[in-house]
Amino acid sequence: MPSPVIPVPKGFSFATASAAFKYTTGRDDLALIVSDSPAAAAGVFTQNLFQAAPVTVAKAQLAASGGHARAILINAGQANACTGAAGIADCRETLSLVAKATDLSPEEILPASTGVIGARLKMDKWKAVVPTLAENLGQTPAMAAAKAIMTTDSFPKIAWGTLTTESGEVRVLGMAKGAGMIAPNMATMIGVLLCDAKVGSLWWQEAVAAAADRSFNSVTVDGDTSTNDCVLGLANGASEVVIDSAEGRQALLAVMAEVCQTLAAMLVQDAEGGTKVLRIKVTGAASPAEAELAARAVGNSPLVKTAFFGRDANWGRIVCAIGRSGAVFDPDDVAVRIGGVPVFEQGMPVADDLDALLAPHMRRGEIPVDIELGAGPGRYLLLASDLTYDYIKINADYRT
Amino acid sequence: MPSPVIPVPKGFSFATASAAFKYTTGRDDLALIVSDSPAAAAGVFTQNLFQAAPVTVAKAQLAASGGHARAILINAGQANACTGAAGIADCRETLSLVAKATDLSPEEILPASTGVIGARLKMDKWKAVVPTLAENLGQTPAMAAAKAIMTTDSFPKIAWGTLTTESGEVRVLGMAKGAGMIAPNMATMIGVLLCDAKVGSLWWQEAVAAAADRSFNSVTVDGDTSTNDCVLGLANGASEVVIDSAEGRQALLAVMAEVCQTLAAMLVQDAEGGTKVLRIKVTGAASPAEAELAARAVGNSPLVKTAFFGRDANWGRIVCAIGRSGAVFDPDDVAVRIGGVPVFEQGMPVADDLDALLAPHMRRGEIPVDIELGAGPGRYLLLASDLTYDYIKINADYRT
Repeated sequence: MPSPVIPVPKGFSFATASAAFKYTTGRDDLALIVSDSPAAAAGVFTQNLFQAAPVTVAKAQLAASGGHARAILINAGQANACTGAAGIADCRETLSLVAKATDLSPEEILPASTGVIGARLKMDKWKAVVPTLAENLGQTPAMAAAKAIMTTDSFPKIAWGTLTTESGEVRVLGMAKGAGMIAPNMATMIGVLLCDAKVGSLWWQEAVAAAADRSFNSVTVDGDTSTNDCVLGLANGASEVVIDSAEGRQALLAVMAEVCQTLAAMLVQDAEGGTKVLRIKVTGAASPAEAELAARAVGNSPLVKTAFFGRDANWGRIVCAIGRSGAVFDPDDVAVRIGGVPVFEQGMPVADDLDALLAPHMRRGEIPVDIELGAGPGRYLLLASDLTYDYIKINADYRT
Repeated sequence: MPSPVIPVPKGFSFATASAAFKYTTGRDDLALIVSDSPAAAAGVFTQNLFQAAPVTVAKAQLAASGGHARAILINAGQANACTGAAGIADCRETLSLVAKATDLSPEEILPASTGVIGARLKMDKWKAVVPTLAENLGQTPAMAAAKAIMTTDSFPKIAWGTLTTESGEVRVLGMAKGAGMIAPNMATMIGVLLCDAKVGSLWWQEAVAAAADRSFNSVTVDGDTSTNDCVLGLANGASEVVIDSAEGRQALLAVMAEVCQTLAAMLVQDAEGGTKVLRIKVTGAASPAEAELAARAVGNSPLVKTAFFGRDANWGRIVCAIGRSGAVFDPDDVAVRIGGVPVFEQGMPVADDLDALLAPHMRRGEIPVDIELGAGPGRYLLLASDLTYDYIKINADYRT
């Protein structure tokens, strides 16, 4: 199948292979991304107290190298989470296997895993597949890597952007996987950011964290965060374009954030069983933190999510979720709009027959929900999925 | 239909009537509970910032009377929430209508409503039905009142207990409604506690709050709390038994708490679409508050709830929910048991093939989930429902 022509940042190669860790239909389930030269490397990791072995190892690699690496290795099907010290040894062994088959050293490779929690890695399958993986390096399009890291995803998620500077063009390429956001069992959301700008490793870490915060951290499917969530970034300087001014950094961060936002929107669009994306914008909160509280209370409410699935313009459930969110405001100052239509003001519905007015909006694939709290300058935007029969089906039947 | 012989506290009468506020199948949807004499009165109300008109009015009545009342008036089908000043006037008007048709005065009646949010009360239906309601007073069994306050409930919820003292017997009768816990649209959970002990109104308020806290506040279906949640209590002294010693109070509170716990378990059992009750017990947390955080993270996780619906002993999702709960602990100290079977210890699954071991437990209607955090003395017990196709069906299709 022809892939779209993707402007890959200079100096990066890809490889994928089929190890059948879990998926036995012949699809690839292992991806390797390699930079020709050492790159500034950054990671943003799950806040969950249970952290998967690859998260522990990737953090240790970044700390030991002072934020440098050359490669990212991702497998789908086995999370290598809740596997104890043995799981960490397994993870390090996979890095050694890949290093032996390539010109990399194990410390230059950042690992990430996604799949079922609790089972040890199938090391025999790793040993069997790594030679093929090494052979494929440089023969594989970026899109194949985005496909190889999928689990319950129904489509690969890849996005890109460019920054034109006086000294040349810089490219940013992002890919992500995740369909329950975040499904601990399918652990979980993984994002990758590749860039050919020449940047300092300290700033790169800040920028990757900021881009993730403005995107992946602002979407919700089921409110869960997993043991394996991570975003890994490499910037290798192969474009020869140095980004070190305040303006340059701001511009590059904007491109990175935009790429991540595109990926995040794809994650919600591909939410397990989801049929709709809710753009929940809270304004007028006492603080940004309270705006986030209100937005998450709405976006994570099973009642709100099922109502939208049922095309029921049930503003009462939205109001109720705001009221119990923990955000502080005067109920009489709250205004809610759905699809741009005012539905709730001064403690009351705006009109008697809102349902007819809202019906056409409830059929849209993406529905804006605007909530003004009238208590301050705090704002937050959250993308949320609806909650459907298929979510139950996918998550009740997945493992067995 | 014969009702069970329910030991009703002395000096209370019941009335129900069919007003067809929302339900047009001839069922009763209005209940009045009257004490022959003024009673100590107490209320525990929703923490939601949006409070329904009956909540506002009941609070005001209790404040003005110093904790005394004679009656409770509950309608099902219309929540009278988000109806502004007009809604409050409507609510007061219903009290006046009932007072005129009985020997009560409006200030002696505590109102509660449950149903769809946002619509004004249908006052014409109230005016038409109140004479019938007044006629039925004393002709109606307590069970009929428990039935009249149902919304999506599939069965009425009523429980009782007695306390035998040296000076005689005291009776406690409780009833509740609620099937989504808590479904803002069907606003929502209502509990009633009737008692014929002679108690002080200050202690009665404390006792009703404590009983509610040990029961209704420890169940979850979907994590929502509505605009209309309330527990109302009347203690009229008709047994002539004075309860004013520390021991007597403790004993009566124990009976009240047990009655409320029975009702709370019924609420979870009747969870919208639920097929199972999870008894989530967290021990060893740094504090009771952290134990509650961990229990709620598990009990509200859509992934945990769908797994149990699918009879999938997916301990990974439980561990993941604990890890993101906000409770602080050392992951290596956590131990999890499902149905009494150890599944997770020292950061790893206890055995390779847990599924076979757990399969028989996953078919049970009530499944204990025991979580030890190893960080302190904090404990919390939470009853939670599973998440099913029928929850989606009920909540996606309810209003339309």
